[in-house]
Amino acid sequence: MDRKERYQLLFDKISQYNSGEKGITRVAYTNEEQACTQAFMRMCKAEGLDIRMDQCGNVIARREGRIKGLPPVLMGSHLDTVYQGGKYDGTVGVTAALEVVKRLNEKGIETDHPIEVISFACEESSRFGVSTLGSKAMAGSFDKEKVRYLKDRNGVTLEEALSLCAFEIDSVHQASREDENIKAFFELHIEQGPVLENENKKIGIVTGIAAPVRFSIKIAGTPSHSGTTPMNMRKDALLGASEIALELEKVALSEQSCGTVATVGVLDIQAGAMNVVPGEVEIKVDIRGTSVDSRQRVLDHLKRTIELVERTRNLEIISQEIISEEPVLLSAEIIETMETICKEQDIPYKMMPSGAGHDAMNMVKLCPTGLIFVPSVDGLSHHPEEHTDLDDLLIGIDVLEQIVIHYSKMDSKIKENV
Amino acid sequence: MDRKERYQLLFDKISQYNSGEKGITRVAYTNEEQACTQAFMRMCKAEGLDIRMDQCGNVIARREGRIKGLPPVLMGSHLDTVYQGGKYDGTVGVTAALEVVKRLNEKGIETDHPIEVISFACEESSRFGVSTLGSKAMAGSFDKEKVRYLKDRNGVTLEEALSLCAFEIDSVHQASREDENIKAFFELHIEQGPVLENENKKIGIVTGIAAPVRFSIKIAGTPSHSGTTPMNMRKDALLGASEIALELEKVALSEQSCGTVATVGVLDIQAGAMNVVPGEVEIKVDIRGTSVDSRQRVLDHLKRTIELVERTRNLEIISQEIISEEPVLLSAEIIETMETICKEQDIPYKMMPSGAGHDAMNMVKLCPTGLIFVPSVDGLSHHPEEHTDLDDLLIGIDVLEQIVIHYSKMDSKIKENV
Repeated sequence: MDRKERYQLLFDKISQYNSGEKGITRVAYTNEEQACTQAFMRMCKAEGLDIRMDQCGNVIARREGRIKGLPPVLMGSHLDTVYQGGKYDGTVGVTAALEVVKRLNEKGIETDHPIEVISFACEESSRFGVSTLGSKAMAGSFDKEKVRYLKDRNGVTLEEALSLCAFEIDSVHQASREDENIKAFFELHIEQGPVLENENKKIGIVTGIAAPVRFSIKIAGTPSHSGTTPMNMRKDALLGASEIALELEKVALSEQSCGTVATVGVLDIQAGAMNVVPGEVEIKVDIRGTSVDSRQRVLDHLKRTIELVERTRNLEIISQEIISEEPVLLSAEIIETMETICKEQDIPYKMMPSGAGHDAMNMVKLCPTGLIFVPSVDGLSHHPEEHTDLDDLLIGIDVLEQIVIHYSKMDSKIKENV
Repeated sequence: MDRKERYQLLFDKISQYNSGEKGITRVAYTNEEQACTQAFMRMCKAEGLDIRMDQCGNVIARREGRIKGLPPVLMGSHLDTVYQGGKYDGTVGVTAALEVVKRLNEKGIETDHPIEVISFACEESSRFGVSTLGSKAMAGSFDKEKVRYLKDRNGVTLEEALSLCAFEIDSVHQASREDENIKAFFELHIEQGPVLENENKKIGIVTGIAAPVRFSIKIAGTPSHSGTTPMNMRKDALLGASEIALELEKVALSEQSCGTVATVGVLDIQAGAMNVVPGEVEIKVDIRGTSVDSRQRVLDHLKRTIELVERTRNLEIISQEIISEEPVLLSAEIIETMETICKEQDIPYKMMPSGAGHDAMNMVKLCPTGLIFVPSVDGLSHHPEEHTDLDDLLIGIDVLEQIVIHYSKMDSKIKENV
């Protein structure tokens, strides 16, 4: 069995843990996800790793280094999925980490530093509305009072779900590794966007993670009869929302060189009916970028647009911030090293921001961190048809292997601590 | 007790029949509506009218004329309401008709022609999605196979609802009065729009009823991650929908002198989420006008806009007609007579189209028909706060009385049969 077949087999094993009919449903802290995680731990044990699970459900599988006392080099991602998601999101990074260990074992490579394979718990926000819980816990940023009573679609709270898995929400903070010395963390992930495929690149070297600013914008006009209200006497909330959505697109297009994006993903008309001029509309806006300045220019234009629409259409618009996270910049030294690896191996690569959040953005608090993307076919993600070609996955694993080998040498430096 | 108090008392009696907590809920073929109709029949009987109910549930209360064999003059509207509607829509026309009879009785006026007070069944489309069933049945346009299995929100079919009231859907066609000679029909109704109030007019003389053309427009793009899809690689269905909505407003504004209106009242994003670029959106469009040419110009512009949006945004748009009704013009002679009455009595009036459908539009098939509007405060209708001042209602009843007295004289002519 060659490497390709070996990896495919490992990948397929994980995909069998699925409670859905369409795509993969392996939601955090459910039986399928827990069973999958258990199986993964056995696979790690079979490779000779020391396995443990922390108080949040993160798997830590360790391969000791040649020299005692050196800080470990970590790699991994997550095994949970969204509802009706795909096979690749998260799973790629976890299985790739184990595959790297298999290669080291196969070649008999002993590293100076210890290496750890990490499978983070509850990365997806699908179940409880909060994402990257496991890496937050490991990074010491788990705020239990903020999440304790969050409910899933069946009314089960996070506290109850943890308890069913025999975790205690009051002990989750013990998963923190803040006081530990960690050399670096690497995550391989699918791009979840169309850029690499469109530009025919095999590797995305991620420079930063664009955290979202999100708003709920409530637009109030006057509901009235669609047949009896003359056009010039209307206060149509939907038309106000339409203008805001189009202006937001316009300003984001003008910030394209900075990689800033803006989306209206939710639009609800209160009591919408074919014969009623919409009186109340709520839209939800998501703005992301790694450049704080560019993001601010989009926000400023949004604010001006809201004021203009309010005035010209006689509407009342209330805008409320839902979330505002700071973008995360990744280690410049790691980025440079990745670039060198790609160049040496003649791999077409692209430096790019990540528009989606990842466990890597929490790990930045613990250690220098690198994030590697492989292409997503049609840019599809969180979707049953999510796909990455096996050959592309193997290129990603090659880069992950190289960078881990590089940083697990004692003389490799991390110049900075971002 | 003066006329004003008398009418208020009658009006208040009807408003007591209500199953809702907010506004009035007296939906077709429910206990409240049937009880209300029964009470109304007793009120008519108390005024000496011959009462009968036809096979669709329409009330026909007749005051015989002086000369045998002359065709009757009809007046009325409907007693059913939408869910959480107001007190005025429909009720005004039915109670006004009875008040006119009371005035004739009071004054001892014997008319040449018989006079009939009509309360139409099931005018509102709220319960089964089809409107003006009673007047359709009376006009011989009731298509039982089209409506038999239409369901209300509890899954009860129209056939079952009729049966519960001891009507048989297979007998409804017997309510037709197509073979009868009817002299004229008059309906007094609230405007349900802001025009009369804004222009400080007390009476709207309706020139035509603008039937709607309605479309469902399905816009298909590609759902993608809001963080990872660059602005220029998106196929955002919501932005396409926004452009269509704004263009529709623009063209309708340009047709304002013709009174044509266009509305997007429904917009649904398929699986909308804050972190997903909308991949599929359905909008529902309602276009109305009494000018067929003007309506066509709006339709043509909508079509061109759809083609342009499809091309420039790389979307697939499918437009499906839901309904297309022909506008109805009302009797020019009756309009002229109403104008004379208003002028003689110094009542500020306005000639105007009706943007909403009414029982009058079906009655046009049976006889020359007139429709009179009274102002709606803030243009509100189908709403708990729907309101018309009592003094304005009394002006409307005066005009209804005058026109009915005029046409129930044997020498009054109807020159045309529209």
